[in-house]
Amino acid sequence: MLNKPEIQYFKGQWPAQKTYTFARPPHYFRLESGKYLGPITVAYETYGQLAPDGENGVYIAHALTGTAQAGGHSGQEKGWWEPLIGPGKVFDTNKYFIVCANVLGGCYGTTGPTSLNEKTGMPYAMDFPVVTIRDMVRVQKHLLDHLGVKHLKIVSGGSLGGMQALEWAVTYPELVDVVIPVAASERLTPLAIAYNQAGRRAIMNDPNWLGGRYYGRTFPVDGLALARMIGTLTYKTNETFEERFGRKLAGRSRDYYNFFQDFEVESYFNYQGQKLVRRFDANSYLYLTKAMDLHDLGRGYPSVLSALRRIKSKVLLIGISSDLLFPPVEIRGLAVELRRAGVDATYRQLQSTFGHDAFLLEFAQLSQIIGEFLAEAGLN
Amino acid sequence: MLNKPEIQYFKGQWPAQKTYTFARPPHYFRLESGKYLGPITVAYETYGQLAPDGENGVYIAHALTGTAQAGGHSGQEKGWWEPLIGPGKVFDTNKYFIVCANVLGGCYGTTGPTSLNEKTGMPYAMDFPVVTIRDMVRVQKHLLDHLGVKHLKIVSGGSLGGMQALEWAVTYPELVDVVIPVAASERLTPLAIAYNQAGRRAIMNDPNWLGGRYYGRTFPVDGLALARMIGTLTYKTNETFEERFGRKLAGRSRDYYNFFQDFEVESYFNYQGQKLVRRFDANSYLYLTKAMDLHDLGRGYPSVLSALRRIKSKVLLIGISSDLLFPPVEIRGLAVELRRAGVDATYRQLQSTFGHDAFLLEFAQLSQIIGEFLAEAGLN
Repeated sequence: MLNKPEIQYFKGQWPAQKTYTFARPPHYFRLESGKYLGPITVAYETYGQLAPDGENGVYIAHALTGTAQAGGHSGQEKGWWEPLIGPGKVFDTNKYFIVCANVLGGCYGTTGPTSLNEKTGMPYAMDFPVVTIRDMVRVQKHLLDHLGVKHLKIVSGGSLGGMQALEWAVTYPELVDVVIPVAASERLTPLAIAYNQAGRRAIMNDPNWLGGRYYGRTFPVDGLALARMIGTLTYKTNETFEERFGRKLAGRSRDYYNFFQDFEVESYFNYQGQKLVRRFDANSYLYLTKAMDLHDLGRGYPSVLSALRRIKSKVLLIGISSDLLFPPVEIRGLAVELRRAGVDATYRQLQSTFGHDAFLLEFAQLSQIIGEFLAEAGLN
Repeated sequence: MLNKPEIQYFKGQWPAQKTYTFARPPHYFRLESGKYLGPITVAYETYGQLAPDGENGVYIAHALTGTAQAGGHSGQEKGWWEPLIGPGKVFDTNKYFIVCANVLGGCYGTTGPTSLNEKTGMPYAMDFPVVTIRDMVRVQKHLLDHLGVKHLKIVSGGSLGGMQALEWAVTYPELVDVVIPVAASERLTPLAIAYNQAGRRAIMNDPNWLGGRYYGRTFPVDGLALARMIGTLTYKTNETFEERFGRKLAGRSRDYYNFFQDFEVESYFNYQGQKLVRRFDANSYLYLTKAMDLHDLGRGYPSVLSALRRIKSKVLLIGISSDLLFPPVEIRGLAVELRRAGVDATYRQLQSTFGHDAFLLEFAQLSQIIGEFLAEAGLN
């Protein structure tokens, strides 16, 4: 039996984080599916100071393979939204108490498929229940209650993080002043579901996956690397690749007619795959992409519109001009729907050739757009 | 030792086709790579009658998983461009002698990795040499010489077929009056290379692939099916999937929170994968996508422009408004380059939500655009 299954199966290291454990048996957490899960540990980071009245909360939600480390530095690693989080930055740590937690189902310290199933003494693997974005958000609410955060001035995040921001606005309308989902919309499109499916299939085709029971055995390296490559196809644009690689051959021998001679763009995709394998769990990848697929704000409500009508926050939707995964037309459409539902919704767009990844790259534009919006909303 | 390795490894059946064999040892065919290949068998179909002077030829080139059966019917199967080929149709069999051959490296009767390597008595598998679009076209020229075709009025095809049409114009400028590449440009983009690489990796990750030596053993079903799914992501559009599937669940049980519950769009992708496995060879898929990656009209010339300057044919480029793989902007750009090179080039666009696949679907628009162009060129 393994004590710390989380860190033995992929070589990623993450900084020591704060953790909070709740839903200890028999007080299980009831998931949206009706299944019960417990205990649940949440790994999180905080930035800034909580006001005595607990009203100055900000929640930042991470994307598919992100971590709780949204801001600050840990060794050489900068937080993934570090340029937006800090004193005087748009998510201003002089004003706000900012919380970011690893999502439910993740592999960076929060309970997920790598965690020990107390009932079996083994990692959950595929016995982990399907979790949804809504479940993630409800777990985050437990964490905020524990921390004494009574109110959220802002909830923001990109991609999977943007989906969480939207769910926050619908699930806890009284608690949030402003939500800022970046590169996310009200539900995942069928095409995006198909990309996620291809990624999952890449993992499940790997003979080392073993139905998810690879812990302590050989990691399904090739499967997860291919899944990452498939994902990366949707995060970038051809324009980026033209500028960076064009049709240049990789390596030194450059034998054009050799079947195994890669173009530089192929080496780049190989590298992206290999990089993720060192730091992420394959089963977590399965569960988090599944949660994305199930993302649908209207689920459990008579309609999407009636779900949107619950929202009391101001909403700033940010799209990316070159995003294939969440095309601007989708996000602009959500802004229209939100206004139809009586929500104070604004649409702004990052002009970028980086594609979906722009939410992790275009910090100057993000700072300006978010800064202006918060100033108008009286929050900065 | 197996006599007909081609038909034992995937369950596809194709109609009895005419074949032509050349490059019998020691008169090997010299590939662009400098390697030698022989004998080479070409499986082909013809439609219409060759004029006594041999001047009424038309060559139609097929796409990645296409066959020589471009026109007509074979049992219940209609040719893939049947609505364009026939008496009174745009490729008019009352006027033209139309030839379509399975490409070099394919698995529908033309020599490829499934064929017997006479040196080893085994199928080539990965000992098959890398072939290029230019090699395919030069093989087709051998076939036309054999058939007595002295001149081509038209060369056309979509996707990989469009690349062949462009290579025809550059390699044999004196022989072709009009080329009509659909959904193809002068070289494959880095992003398209990355998609192809992901597909190849899906096959090579399959434990049954065995370095290509799966013939007579277990076919790498999961790998080829996943490769097809990855390809299909680029052939279609989200708009199509929204209309057809939306976010509907597949099957009867519809257990939303079951990890293995598919959305209808996932079932569709599974189906596309399973369908290809029955009719296509995995190693051929590797070699033909590699040939696509190597497609670059300028290769071997001082520049793309100098390659384009060789062209004497009129060129009608047809793009597809919703094509992700060959975005209209790329193809329009080629039209500009062609005119800069002094070529009589026209760009027309299919208005379609079908994406890249529109070249196999939008027959009314194709007939009109091609028909008008040929009439102006004095060919119809």
